[in-house]
Amino acid sequence: MVVRDAGGPEMLAVWDVIDPQPGPGEVLIDVVAAGVNRADLLQRQGNYPPPPGASELIGLECSGRISGLGPGVEGFEIGDEVCALLAGGGYAERVAVPAGQVLPRPEGVTLVEAAALPETVCTVWSNIFMLASLRPQETLLVHGGASGIGTTAIQLGKAVDARVIATVGADSKVAKCLELGADTVINYRKDDFVEVVKQVTEGHGADVILDVVGAPYLDRNMRTLATAGRLVVIGMQGGRTGELDLGLLLAKRAAVLATGLRARPVQEKAAIVASVRDNVWPLIADGHLRPVVHTVLPLEEAGEAHRILEDSEQIGKVLLLAREP
Amino acid sequence: MVVRDAGGPEMLAVWDVIDPQPGPGEVLIDVVAAGVNRADLLQRQGNYPPPPGASELIGLECSGRISGLGPGVEGFEIGDEVCALLAGGGYAERVAVPAGQVLPRPEGVTLVEAAALPETVCTVWSNIFMLASLRPQETLLVHGGASGIGTTAIQLGKAVDARVIATVGADSKVAKCLELGADTVINYRKDDFVEVVKQVTEGHGADVILDVVGAPYLDRNMRTLATAGRLVVIGMQGGRTGELDLGLLLAKRAAVLATGLRARPVQEKAAIVASVRDNVWPLIADGHLRPVVHTVLPLEEAGEAHRILEDSEQIGKVLLLAREP
Repeated sequence: MVVRDAGGPEMLAVWDVIDPQPGPGEVLIDVVAAGVNRADLLQRQGNYPPPPGASELIGLECSGRISGLGPGVEGFEIGDEVCALLAGGGYAERVAVPAGQVLPRPEGVTLVEAAALPETVCTVWSNIFMLASLRPQETLLVHGGASGIGTTAIQLGKAVDARVIATVGADSKVAKCLELGADTVINYRKDDFVEVVKQVTEGHGADVILDVVGAPYLDRNMRTLATAGRLVVIGMQGGRTGELDLGLLLAKRAAVLATGLRARPVQEKAAIVASVRDNVWPLIADGHLRPVVHTVLPLEEAGEAHRILEDSEQIGKVLLLAREP
Repeated sequence: MVVRDAGGPEMLAVWDVIDPQPGPGEVLIDVVAAGVNRADLLQRQGNYPPPPGASELIGLECSGRISGLGPGVEGFEIGDEVCALLAGGGYAERVAVPAGQVLPRPEGVTLVEAAALPETVCTVWSNIFMLASLRPQETLLVHGGASGIGTTAIQLGKAVDARVIATVGADSKVAKCLELGADTVINYRKDDFVEVVKQVTEGHGADVILDVVGAPYLDRNMRTLATAGRLVVIGMQGGRTGELDLGLLLAKRAAVLATGLRARPVQEKAAIVASVRDNVWPLIADGHLRPVVHTVLPLEEAGEAHRILEDSEQIGKVLLLAREP
């Protein structure tokens, strides 16, 4: 699927391109399914160009079977069922990716479902655990609890025995977040999350906040943080520049952290993927984490997938099917 | 020295108060010298009240001899020459303090000079090293390079083989910062530190920034940070609320951290002091770090000491002498 020109979902079109070739240390994957991420919408609009050297095609994660091995690859064989974190190129029938960004299909998950995992799990794990060091009994506030990131964060938070509070924008999403284990779910259109978090934590606040809204939530997030709390911003859906009260930050001895996965060097991505394989993959095998899939559409309907995300209709991930598994 | 009423330096006055008594786990110190810190000025103005349970008297650090031991204190004896990190009460002849906040007078430093160490060394060590993890070969930018904090940060940065850039507000302070080891010193009244840091790091930027200015520097500090850089705000001399560009934070995968020492629980202070004793005290003994003392005034002249800090005249620390050593 190529983007004919920066613009709306209708700009996504089927096109024949040259097959990618696996370079040194890379594997070639015959894609079965590709995950759709909010960053894909920005890239389609021309606002999130691929990093240097990455595929021009959209798509930050996929599942499939290994169909080629570049020089120097160890630990994978032709035919292996895998999923992978990509810098681009997922909306396609084939993609080449550094072997360090490839994970085996976890036990108990179909090959299609596995496409829902790499981007969300690596994002949540690297931010909430590797960066913000969420600990047992701490309180995690997840904004956008029904999104792919949100449903993953709720489950991983509960898997480490944290208290999890999620915000959602519609009552229809509350039940799903509770089912996934969230202790408290707030419809932000009805209630002020600052107040609710204070109430349910008896004034303590949130130790870690995972935010995708950005500027409009910056001050409210700061007021919601506990002493020594960590605000992790991974998206700016509402805007990028906000007022930061350094006095409040200092009084709380708090941290504002922001990271993205896509632009990181290959070695850093490989370190995250290795940590995910060691720490999160066992949680999938034992049932603590399962992919939440809203719907699976044919790859050619990528435009419709983007419309679903733009309207925030989904609960969990939207996947694109490139070939029958 | 008591504050008769919130106000200017003239509000500091000699007064007889009841001797403090060491509680469980505390030692009593016969104060020889007390360090003057910028936070003291805020407290005198009524803007920085002592935390619950702390002395009402000003003074966050002192040196002296142990003259009393509360129940359960181990590792110290009457007569030991020490210095201590205080929650308050340093501008006095005697002060009681938890034993975990007491350090032996380091080798090669007089008992008077030792009063210059606890607050600055614990602040710099806990922020730049324990929190922001400054590593060898990284670039450290120190704002206010000639202050007590600044002169300590320059020396500790060089002791771990970082590149150190300092800003100062007067040409008269440049030479001292260079003498202490700073690789580059910027007079911020003449040059734009954003540009100078970019030039001397060949576009890389600062990996760690130690800031005391706050809001007016927030955006410039963000633009000066390197990828994966850490901005540590420990003061807000210029204001507390500034614009934060989360997009820049995210693009740089950076962190904004803010901490203060004074309000922390006793156990956290003890952990910092223990780390300082293990890691920094040997650097004093071997000459990598020495206290920089601007002047020593009699305790009764605390008002004059405050005037010096208010005019930013000093290079290094101003100390108050409570009794002959």
